[in-house]
Amino acid sequence: MFKKILVAIDGSDAAKAALEKAIELNQSLHADIYILLVQKHMSNLEASMHMMPNDNSTVGDSVLAYSEQLVKSAKSTVTAANPEINVRGFIKIGPVARTIIAFAEERQIDLIVLGSRGHGDRDGFMLGSVSHKVTSMANIPVLVI
Amino acid sequence: MFKKILVAIDGSDAAKAALEKAIELNQSLHADIYILLVQKHMSNLEASMHMMPNDNSTVGDSVLAYSEQLVKSAKSTVTAANPEINVRGFIKIGPVARTIIAFAEERQIDLIVLGSRGHGDRDGFMLGSVSHKVTSMANIPVLVI
Repeated sequence: MFKKILVAIDGSDAAKAALEKAIELNQSLHADIYILLVQKHMSNLEASMHMMPNDNSTVGDSVLAYSEQLVKSAKSTVTAANPEINVRGFIKIGPVARTIIAFAEERQIDLIVLGSRGHGDRDGFMLGSVSHKVTSMANIPVLVI
Repeated sequence: MFKKILVAIDGSDAAKAALEKAIELNQSLHADIYILLVQKHMSNLEASMHMMPNDNSTVGDSVLAYSEQLVKSAKSTVTAANPEINVRGFIKIGPVARTIIAFAEERQIDLIVLGSRGHGDRDGFMLGSVSHKVTSMANIPVLVI
């Protein structure tokens, strides 16, 4: 049965759409929802190309704060749709597809939900896209939105 | 809402697993199930490499009969699991991924379910795999089992 659904988010519109569909599907399933944001490990130089900290915090702190905000917002979206659903948020650092799969296996997830076009994955046919890697490598059903 | 689920089959074990998962998911959704088998267009020569007709029928007849048997068997599996579910079977001829997507759009399908490794798709990373093409090209949620 589908009792634990993992929704992988990354701040992209596709991930938002994936979360919305997971919530819709879960109106029937009443599963627990796990929100997972995987941060690729970035050097400070790489990270500084993405955002600019405006106080004394390090770039790493800013990236983490942004991730935390995204996870918190996703949890609120789930709870707003149905306050009775158990929802938990997680942030992991590592290679995205492999980290999603490892997390899903560890938590005995029944269904992984993800957007088809995350950040840096504009061409669905690009070898190495996160959704392609996850659907190819996971032994768990994957719903691509 | 998920009211029409399309399960693409091809006789592979992955497709059988996809059908089983779709049935399981549908215990909660109670959607109509559409079974679709897409036959690639084959020349008689190509077809003769796959099977050998043992009577006066043409190779094309044999391929079609085999497809019909697969669809019929899939429908029976759905009905055996839940006799109240509406299930319909279809056979189409054409390029597999595009034909699945065109059918899904035409019938206003809410969810496409397919196996991750169909016939001729042993390497999930192979560019052009059916599941990769469908997830990349479809504007409809795709569940890859």
